[in-house]
Amino acid sequence: MTDTQVTLAQIDNYGPWTTTPAPRREPDLQALQASLYADLAEQVGAHDGYVFYTRFDNMVAVTNGLDRAAHERIQETVRNRYPVTLSLSVAAERTPAAALSTASAQLQAAGSAQDVDRREVLAGAVDADAGPVEIAHFDVVDATEKYTDGTGAYETFLRIEEGYAALARHLHATHDALAFFVGGDNVIAVCPRLDPAAYAGAMDHVREETGLDLRVGVGRGPTACDAGLAAKQRLEECREDQVRVGVPATVSGD
Amino acid sequence: MTDTQVTLAQIDNYGPWTTTPAPRREPDLQALQASLYADLAEQVGAHDGYVFYTRFDNMVAVTNGLDRAAHERIQETVRNRYPVTLSLSVAAERTPAAALSTASAQLQAAGSAQDVDRREVLAGAVDADAGPVEIAHFDVVDATEKYTDGTGAYETFLRIEEGYAALARHLHATHDALAFFVGGDNVIAVCPRLDPAAYAGAMDHVREETGLDLRVGVGRGPTACDAGLAAKQRLEECREDQVRVGVPATVSGD
Amino acid sequence: MTDTQVTLAQIDNYGPWTTTPAPRREPDLQALQASLYADLAEQVGAHDGYVFYTRFDNMVAVTNGLDRAAHERIQETVRNRYPVTLSLSVAAERTPAAALSTASAQLQAAGSAQDVDRREVLAGAVDADAGPVEIAHFDVVDATEKYTDGTGAYETFLRIEEGYAALARHLHATHDALAFFVGGDNVIAVCPRLDPAAYAGAMDHVREETGLDLRVGVGRGPTACDAGLAAKQRLEECREDQVRVGVPATVSGD
Amino acid sequence: MTDTQVTLAQIDNYGPWTTTPAPRREPDLQALQASLYADLAEQVGAHDGYVFYTRFDNMVAVTNGLDRAAHERIQETVRNRYPVTLSLSVAAERTPAAALSTASAQLQAAGSAQDVDRREVLAGAVDADAGPVEIAHFDVVDATEKYTDGTGAYETFLRIEEGYAALARHLHATHDALAFFVGGDNVIAVCPRLDPAAYAGAMDHVREETGLDLRVGVGRGPTACDAGLAAKQRLEECREDQVRVGVPATVSGD
Repeated sequence: MTDTQVTLAQIDNYGPWTTTPAPRREPDLQALQASLYADLAEQVGAHDGYVFYTRFDNMVAVTNGLDRAAHERIQETVRNRYPVTLSLSVAAERTPAAALSTASAQLQAAGSAQDVDRREVLAGAVDADAGPVEIAHFDVVDATEKYTDGTGAYETFLRIEEGYAALARHLHATHDALAFFVGGDNVIAVCPRLDPAAYAGAMDHVREETGLDLRVGVGRGPTACDAGLAAKQRLEECREDQVRVGVPATVSGD
Repeated sequence: MTDTQVTLAQIDNYGPWTTTPAPRREPDLQALQASLYADLAEQVGAHDGYVFYTRFDNMVAVTNGLDRAAHERIQETVRNRYPVTLSLSVAAERTPAAALSTASAQLQAAGSAQDVDRREVLAGAVDADAGPVEIAHFDVVDATEKYTDGTGAYETFLRIEEGYAALARHLHATHDALAFFVGGDNVIAVCPRLDPAAYAGAMDHVREETGLDLRVGVGRGPTACDAGLAAKQRLEECREDQVRVGVPATVSGD
Repeated sequence: MTDTQVTLAQIDNYGPWTTTPAPRREPDLQALQASLYADLAEQVGAHDGYVFYTRFDNMVAVTNGLDRAAHERIQETVRNRYPVTLSLSVAAERTPAAALSTASAQLQAAGSAQDVDRREVLAGAVDADAGPVEIAHFDVVDATEKYTDGTGAYETFLRIEEGYAALARHLHATHDALAFFVGGDNVIAVCPRLDPAAYAGAMDHVREETGLDLRVGVGRGPTACDAGLAAKQRLEECREDQVRVGVPATVSGD
Repeated sequence: MTDTQVTLAQIDNYGPWTTTPAPRREPDLQALQASLYADLAEQVGAHDGYVFYTRFDNMVAVTNGLDRAAHERIQETVRNRYPVTLSLSVAAERTPAAALSTASAQLQAAGSAQDVDRREVLAGAVDADAGPVEIAHFDVVDATEKYTDGTGAYETFLRIEEGYAALARHLHATHDALAFFVGGDNVIAVCPRLDPAAYAGAMDHVREETGLDLRVGVGRGPTACDAGLAAKQRLEECREDQVRVGVPATVSGD
């Protein structure tokens, strides 16, 4: 029984390409990376999956609901629209972290990220029965008042990065979850089924380590979009009700 | 005398927009943020500036060479192509961090990031004489062999994030510099004039704190693109020559 | 029994928006229109449909295979990423032209294109059983040699436009088909089931009227992409075999 | 003395690329072409030029104000962000049509559009003193009421195409101007200095040939954007004042 299907997307031989025959203009590289990510977000999103930009040359997607043909189509579109190609490795496991580990190992087995002969690998197998997905959407309590409007933009940025890093390490080490910063003061975590105490504990940890106060809404569903939208709605309710953790009613029971 | 002109770009009232009237689909928000950033990278890049995505709703640009009209044009294009608008605050100071602090304070003085009546502010003044810019381009020694091809994608990601965070905090606290992760294993820092020992010290600090081995190429020029391209070329030379720090020949003397 | 499902996409109140409060910069409008079209092409394409840019503020899509939820998703994405909104009207009929007429009438019944209160209409009903689609992909014999490499770019452009217009009028008037210029020297027509003589006749007509020599590959399938890809493959065969019309083997029989 | 600087942009070896090794998915090709055009519109627009999509694989730009470095930068960005490359040919002449003819001949002299060895040509010479540019912005009187809201979308589309074609042929043959459809019911023409009677005559011709009633605003300026914005403002005045031709006050005198 598996819960989360994860796909690791890696641009083939990207590092060498960026400096061949000479270093390419940074604004073009930034635009290339961001456009490619935007297109992947929509393509994976068309099947209700989520993609996280991560390191841009390596991106992580939650792909419950995407079959092999959908993965091949993404590779085809990238090949047709970009000067680079994409390898994908998909794995479904009991926890998000286990799935990504498997996906990583599969891709490494197929060749190096800088192997010129390794192009457009599609490693691993989809699992049409994987699910449900659990998504936790975190944000910072009073981020705008306390930080954006009050301190320097860089101090705020470092502060939120620190809080994100503390959360990510804790969730990964303790719960085999994968957390990603998604802009603003928002972090999205793909989690195995966790109870409210686990979420509260993670936020306590972040507060102790960095002083940041978080809030979280949790959702569950057949796809990342279903789970994520439920999480976002619950987060809105938490904000209104001044509650720290919003979880599906059935979390403890089902 | 000022060296670095920095522009803080902030999407007006973005947080509330993302949840009004109900939380918007995450893939659309991710695509919106990334597309907006890609377009800014090219628009600022057309005048040889650099933009860093930072928190996406707050972006930081190095804008030596961009006059007031170029800033207004960027605001106009965003208004014409996106469902959101952009406020900008520009400042030139002796150090990058000082410039961003001034820019932050100017924007905060103009109203809250979530003030519905604060739209398309253009705060501060450009300084046509600001310069030269110093850009340091860092990467990780043997990142592909040691990390991407060898460990799980998430562990690698956290590892590089940690190294980046350590570097950013050190450069900011010690040298008033601004460092940004730009994808892969690359970090770009906008610095005041630093000598080779300062760069070596920063990398020693990162190694002690996180175990990551960095390398850096440094460039200087009238614009971020000029300085940044020189930095990237020097980084390539460092890679070939197995050297840790590549700085302009004149760094100690001029 | 219906063959072609067509969706008319219309930007709501676009004309007035482009001049309010004052005429907007043309490069921004062009970039907006083209980006919106590119995104629609991929979104409709994710479900194997085709979109034609037509007048850009009014676009025509072949949407066999797209259900109502897919249409709503497209409207949602446009609302989330662009400063404009989109109304859609869908109809399935025996012929492409009949379907587009029905779609047009439905949208007109819902309000004017410049009615500020008509926003995001989704008119009409999808027909999950519509099909098969017939796609004809035309190009110009020896276009590069005779035109692109030989005459002025504007003369070539007018020449190909003329040929396209003659083809479009003939196919529409005689066969209730919809033809669209898609770049280069390519025209794609969505047709009811036509026999080889009909295609030959259309090309004879274009030659007589404009002197342009065309070639066509025809495909049929459950979706526009299936039919269109078969048409393109057949067109390649025609090019190699120096044949004017390539139709599915079963065209006359099934 | 030259007025208009025109740049012909041609995707290198595009036709063969679209079918190698097999025909590529049409939605990807459409998205590629439209994205490339959108990016060019913004890049040329950053220097106040206009680009017209024309055949997409061959585009025409009015580039008064763009120097050689700006042209090279555009080629560089395309190479860095797309799977195709771009050749450019620039010419400044007394009339727009003459400039485009020269540009076409220069590019043809450099090799075929389908020559695999002809890549990223930059032919011709910029003329920093070219100008002023004259832009005429036409639209259809009561287009929404008479056509969009009243007849089928395809009939309207063909109607407007016909009107555009008649206008383009007349302006080209009679006045050495270049006219381009730019979406909706809008046509932009790049003209040599014409008097009001010439514009009135062109619109009379279109009415006689196709029954379409046009209106035009004309502007003049150092760049296409300057001239084009003045033209659009004058067109708005014509609309309000129910006048057919709006020209700069100095048209007959200066």
